[in-house]
Amino acid sequence: MKKCYGGIDLGGTYIKAGLLTADGRVIAKLKIPTDVSAGLDTVRRNLLIAGRELIAMAKKRGYKLAGIGVGSPGTVKYPDGLITGSSPNIPGWIGTNIRKLFSEFTFPVKGDNDANCMGLAESKFGAGKGTKLGFYLTIGTGIGGAVMVNGSLLRGATFAAGEFGHTIFKYGGKKYKTGQRGPLEAYVAAPALIRNARLAVKKYGKSILKKQYDNLTTHEIFAAFKSGDRAAVEAVTENAEMLGTAIGSIVNLLNPEIVVIGGGVSAGGTRYIDLIGKSAKSFAFDSATSALKIKIAKFGNEAGWIGAACLNM
Amino acid sequence: MKKCYGGIDLGGTYIKAGLLTADGRVIAKLKIPTDVSAGLDTVRRNLLIAGRELIAMAKKRGYKLAGIGVGSPGTVKYPDGLITGSSPNIPGWIGTNIRKLFSEFTFPVKGDNDANCMGLAESKFGAGKGTKLGFYLTIGTGIGGAVMVNGSLLRGATFAAGEFGHTIFKYGGKKYKTGQRGPLEAYVAAPALIRNARLAVKKYGKSILKKQYDNLTTHEIFAAFKSGDRAAVEAVTENAEMLGTAIGSIVNLLNPEIVVIGGGVSAGGTRYIDLIGKSAKSFAFDSATSALKIKIAKFGNEAGWIGAACLNM
Repeated sequence: MKKCYGGIDLGGTYIKAGLLTADGRVIAKLKIPTDVSAGLDTVRRNLLIAGRELIAMAKKRGYKLAGIGVGSPGTVKYPDGLITGSSPNIPGWIGTNIRKLFSEFTFPVKGDNDANCMGLAESKFGAGKGTKLGFYLTIGTGIGGAVMVNGSLLRGATFAAGEFGHTIFKYGGKKYKTGQRGPLEAYVAAPALIRNARLAVKKYGKSILKKQYDNLTTHEIFAAFKSGDRAAVEAVTENAEMLGTAIGSIVNLLNPEIVVIGGGVSAGGTRYIDLIGKSAKSFAFDSATSALKIKIAKFGNEAGWIGAACLNM
Repeated sequence: MKKCYGGIDLGGTYIKAGLLTADGRVIAKLKIPTDVSAGLDTVRRNLLIAGRELIAMAKKRGYKLAGIGVGSPGTVKYPDGLITGSSPNIPGWIGTNIRKLFSEFTFPVKGDNDANCMGLAESKFGAGKGTKLGFYLTIGTGIGGAVMVNGSLLRGATFAAGEFGHTIFKYGGKKYKTGQRGPLEAYVAAPALIRNARLAVKKYGKSILKKQYDNLTTHEIFAAFKSGDRAAVEAVTENAEMLGTAIGSIVNLLNPEIVVIGGGVSAGGTRYIDLIGKSAKSFAFDSATSALKIKIAKFGNEAGWIGAACLNM
């Protein structure tokens, strides 16, 4: 019987899951609401429903399910999936043990941090395929990161590595919601881009973003950027300069072969990535960028479950 | 015949070298001037003299020399020791090949970056002994760094990893001699500490550093700090806050078991390290610092040759 691997990505809004073959082919997918507002018992039950559904889908398609991996926000002890650090999107999630939650299953179950899963998916089958030393980041409301060394995730001494959004960007700068002053996330994540785009819209009266001013999304900002809207170009260019500097900084520290950028900002496309690359290469040393590639993530918001499925390969 | 390992540390002022047993015992040491001002031929000849002297010392003490490692400033291709990136202390050093330079020797010769050697020495036999994931930094005129993952050096895709001094610290900040704006080195390395101490001396008229104002060294600043001199305490405390923030930032990214601080600033002693630790733990997440140790380097300015000797173990 052919083998397949199940992956589940626990998000604040949706649980995404699917089945993958050992060579990275997607066999089936599903998406159900996480329903955080209904309480943690509901979240746990929805995770179990997703797991049982994966088993049914594998059976129906003639595959043996060899294991399930789960990506969760927060600090996640690998491989058992004990949540040891807070995740603002799922309050009270600390203390949950993914493996215990899935104890009815007879195959291996592993849990890991969601950004780690994203990095693993892109490294194994996506934009970083074939590389061994890579830096993976995903930008949305927050900024997540994952470091691959020798083809393996660098999870850290207490499974807390990869917090790229919480590295210093401007010493003595803005006080962020975490209590830190000047971390990268405060300047570069989606809320900061939206804030800066609003300032630019005020500056250039004629922006096409004016009518969406109060409900601006990064999606609209990037669309306006691509159409050449002056306010959007200014906001996105500044964002790319800041993000590029922070990436150049990591490149000086880790000298990766590849940097892969995922999350909402990947909507910025090639022109945005080029601006980021220019800024990164201007900040980093030539000796560290001579072989560097900067790419957009391949799997978009599917990377989480795909990487989770990879945990058991 | 008992085996020993030779290490050579090429510095801008001195070549330090020595012999080490496989369990880290120092058998012999030597120190000769690098003599950069006499030209690169002289530097190369002095390196050869150090190598030949190691052979003689090993023979005299009844050891078989199993190999020589060389730590050099700049970007150094491991293991052959081709210098691929500039080193301001030895102009024109790019293109030198350590292994070719030592081609008369019949045992293995390896070359690596000097900060990598420092990290390796501290990780294998020093303050980081017994750990697998560590971050090693050395602060003097510049700031060097080394990352150990799974007990091995993370050298990077093009041997350029570890440039902690050239990570972003204050976006849009001071333009540094490298052309970057706001890198850590500009704020925290010895010249910055001396500059800040001078400002503090001007502020507090009674400082014991007043008489050395024009020729201030970090050694004197740390001595005054230990004696409670107000100007020195202010300058060193600010330095520790900045360095601690940058370390906390790395801790959020890599979540190491240990951070080891070497170089001139290790003269600051326990009180200085405590201030750094406080600042690092205030910036980093609790989940990343729960098992973190921050220590002063064990080997001081001997770490370079000791780590170079470890390259052949």
